[in-house]
Amino acid sequence: MCEADLIPDLLTQAESKIVLLVIDGLGGIGMGPEGKTELEQASTPHLDRLCEVATVGLTDPVAPGITPGSGPSHLSLFGYDPIRYDIGRGVLEALGIDFPLTERDVAARGNFATLDSRGIVTDRRAGRLPTPENARICAKVGESINTIDGVEVIIRPGKEHRCVVVFRGDGLSGALADTDPQKDGLAPKPVAALEPAAEGTATVVAKYLERVQPVLAGEERANVLLLRGFAKYPDIPSMETRFGLRSAAIAGYPMYRGLARLVGMTVLETGDTIDDQLETLERHFADFDFFYVHVKKTDKAGEDGDFEGKVRAIEEVDERVPRLLKLEPDVFVVTSDHSTPAALRSHSWHPNPFLLYAKTCRGDRVSHFTEVGCARGSLGTFPALHAMPLMLAHALRLKKYGA
Amino acid sequence: MCEADLIPDLLTQAESKIVLLVIDGLGGIGMGPEGKTELEQASTPHLDRLCEVATVGLTDPVAPGITPGSGPSHLSLFGYDPIRYDIGRGVLEALGIDFPLTERDVAARGNFATLDSRGIVTDRRAGRLPTPENARICAKVGESINTIDGVEVIIRPGKEHRCVVVFRGDGLSGALADTDPQKDGLAPKPVAALEPAAEGTATVVAKYLERVQPVLAGEERANVLLLRGFAKYPDIPSMETRFGLRSAAIAGYPMYRGLARLVGMTVLETGDTIDDQLETLERHFADFDFFYVHVKKTDKAGEDGDFEGKVRAIEEVDERVPRLLKLEPDVFVVTSDHSTPAALRSHSWHPNPFLLYAKTCRGDRVSHFTEVGCARGSLGTFPALHAMPLMLAHALRLKKYGA
Repeated sequence: MCEADLIPDLLTQAESKIVLLVIDGLGGIGMGPEGKTELEQASTPHLDRLCEVATVGLTDPVAPGITPGSGPSHLSLFGYDPIRYDIGRGVLEALGIDFPLTERDVAARGNFATLDSRGIVTDRRAGRLPTPENARICAKVGESINTIDGVEVIIRPGKEHRCVVVFRGDGLSGALADTDPQKDGLAPKPVAALEPAAEGTATVVAKYLERVQPVLAGEERANVLLLRGFAKYPDIPSMETRFGLRSAAIAGYPMYRGLARLVGMTVLETGDTIDDQLETLERHFADFDFFYVHVKKTDKAGEDGDFEGKVRAIEEVDERVPRLLKLEPDVFVVTSDHSTPAALRSHSWHPNPFLLYAKTCRGDRVSHFTEVGCARGSLGTFPALHAMPLMLAHALRLKKYGA
Repeated sequence: MCEADLIPDLLTQAESKIVLLVIDGLGGIGMGPEGKTELEQASTPHLDRLCEVATVGLTDPVAPGITPGSGPSHLSLFGYDPIRYDIGRGVLEALGIDFPLTERDVAARGNFATLDSRGIVTDRRAGRLPTPENARICAKVGESINTIDGVEVIIRPGKEHRCVVVFRGDGLSGALADTDPQKDGLAPKPVAALEPAAEGTATVVAKYLERVQPVLAGEERANVLLLRGFAKYPDIPSMETRFGLRSAAIAGYPMYRGLARLVGMTVLETGDTIDDQLETLERHFADFDFFYVHVKKTDKAGEDGDFEGKVRAIEEVDERVPRLLKLEPDVFVVTSDHSTPAALRSHSWHPNPFLLYAKTCRGDRVSHFTEVGCARGSLGTFPALHAMPLMLAHALRLKKYGA
C-alpha cells in the first residue's frame, strides 16, 4: 500500500480542467562554477509573475541521484510509480517510431549487424548502415516473413542500423534474453527464455531469426539481425480508471505520444510548433479533463550542449503563457520530466522546477521561476509521483480521507 | 524493491574521487530560545563560500524524530538502510574497542557485577570497577577459558565494569536473550535461545558462564559476569560490491574504524589530529575512489555540553577546507552522522547540515553553512540514505535508469 493507492477511493466528480505543461529537460546547471542555469539566464516575466501566487518546488522523477530515461520520468509525472511500472526497451523503441502497439505485442529493439564466415559479429552496427538501406532490408524481411506458428511478426526500420521487431499473438512473454552479444568479436547469443512461461515465445523468436538469416544472406554488411530489450506491452491501468480523468496528449514527438497512449490518453493531432500545440489545446479544451502538453525543444538544445538555444526555447514558452492562461484552466502545472543541463549534454539527476497555479493555491511568494526559486517553495524537493495527487486535489477532484 | 536497490544495476566505471567528511554531531540547537547554534556561532568562511556554489540540505539519519546511535547513522550515510541492516549492540561494543571481529563471531557486551549469597545481583556495575581491575580479571578469565565445545571464546576489557565477550565458531547465532537482568535486586537470567537455530549457541554460552563463575569466586565485587546484546557479525555487502567503490576510512576512533570495516572499507592508519587525517588523505588519495574522513571532536564537545568547545572544533575543520580542496576531489560532501547539541549533551534527532560540492552542482546560492542555510537548499530535508546515490551521481558513476 503506497500513497498513490489511496487515490482511486478518494476520487469525486468535478468539471475542472488540468493542464500539465512539460518543458522537457527544463532544469539545468551553470556552465561554470559561478555560472547561471539556462532558466536563470532566460527572461521569463510571465512565469515569474505566476511564481508569486503559485505553489512551487522541485521534483525528483525517480529518486535522488537517479537520472531517468523519458519513460520512467513521464510515468512518474502521470502518477504511475516508475519502479513498479517498468516499460521495457523494446516497447519504448516501438513508441519512438510511432508504431501502434497493442496489448498482445512483444517488442524488441533490433540491430542489423555484420557476421563473418565463422559466425562472429564483426560490426554490431553494420557500418552504421544508411537509413534507406535499412528501410529496404526491413521491407524485404517483412515481405518474406509475416507469421511464425500463428504469431504475426512485424519489422519496422529506425535510423541507421536500428529497427523494431514486434511479435503479435496471444500469451506471448517478454522474458527473453538478448541475442545481441553487446560486443563485437562474439557470436550472437541463442534465444533463451528467462522464465518457463516464456518458452513458447522463445521458440517463435528462434524460428523467426532462423528464417531471417537466408533473407539477409545476400547483404554485404547487414547479414544478421540481433535483438535485445524484449518487452511485453505493459499492463498499466488507464488515467481514466485510475484518476477519473478523460485525458489528452498534445505532443509533437512519437515517443511522448506513445507514452501517453500507454496510460490511455487520447493523442491529438498537432503541428510542430508550440503555437500549433496551443491551437490544438484551444480547439479541444472542452473535450477533456486533463491535457498533457509536451515541449521538446528545450531538451533537444540541452542534449546538443546549446545553452543559448535552450534559453531561447524557454523564453518562447514563457511568451505563450498568457495565451494559455486565457483558457482559465483550473490547475496549471509547469514542470519538466527531468533536467537536461547543456553543460552535461544529457539527461541528469538534478531535481526539476515545478510550479502549480490554481485558485486554491497558497502563494509561495517566490519572485523567479528558477531552480533556486523553486527550491525555496512550499513543496520542497519531492517525488514527481506526488504531482498527480496535488493536481487532482487543486482540481477539487479528491474527497477527504477518513472521517 | 526500494530505490537503493536500483543502484547496483546503474553503476558505471569512472575515475572520479569522492570525499565524505563527517563532522560528528555537527548540528545543534541554541543554548536558549533566541540562542545561536554552534554552527551559527562559529566563523566558517570557507564552508560559507562553498555553500554559494554547492547543493545543500538537511538529512534525517533514520527518520524524522529518531535519534540514532553511531551505527545506524553511519550506515545510512554509507548507503545502507539502517533499519534493514541492524548492527547488534555486542558487535558495536566490539568495534568500539577495536576488536578484529570475523564473520564467524557472535559478540556480547559484558558487565562485571556483584552477586550476593542468595544469587541476587546487588550492583550491576560492581561499584564501577576501576579499569585496571577489569583488565586483570579479564586476563584471568581469558587464561582459564579458551574454548567451549570447540567454540573459541575471547574476553576483552572495556572501561570500568564493561567488557566484550566474543564467541567464534561455525554456525553460531546471536538470537539469545540477555542474561543481564537490567536491574539490581534480581537474579541473573538464564541463557535462552530466541529461536530454535540458536539452541546450540545457547548451550555454549551457558557452559561458558558456568565455567566463568568459579574463576570469579575470589573477587570481592566482580563475582559475576552478565551478558547482553548478543549479536552475530552482520551480513552486509561491501561498498565495492554495492557501489563499485574502492573505499578507505580515515578515523581516529575505534568505533568508526570498525563501522567502516563492516562495509568493507580499508582502514588507513592515521594520527589523532585533523592535520594527521588530512596528511593520510593526501598520501593515499591516488589509491581509492571513496574516502570517509571522521572528525570526532565536535561530538565529544557536544556530549560534554561544551558549546564553545564545539564552536572551536567546527572552526578548526573550516580552516582546513582549503587544504582539502587542493586535492580537487570530484565530489566533496561535508555533513554529519547526527546532531549533538551541547544544550542536550547527547545525540539528537535534529536533521544534519549537508553540503555537496562538485563540478556538476547547481549552486543553491545559500550564504552561510548553518542549519537554517541548509534548510533553504535544493535538497530540502531528506533521508541520509539518499546521500550515496547523490554522491555517485555527481561522481558520474551512475547510468540512466530506463530508456
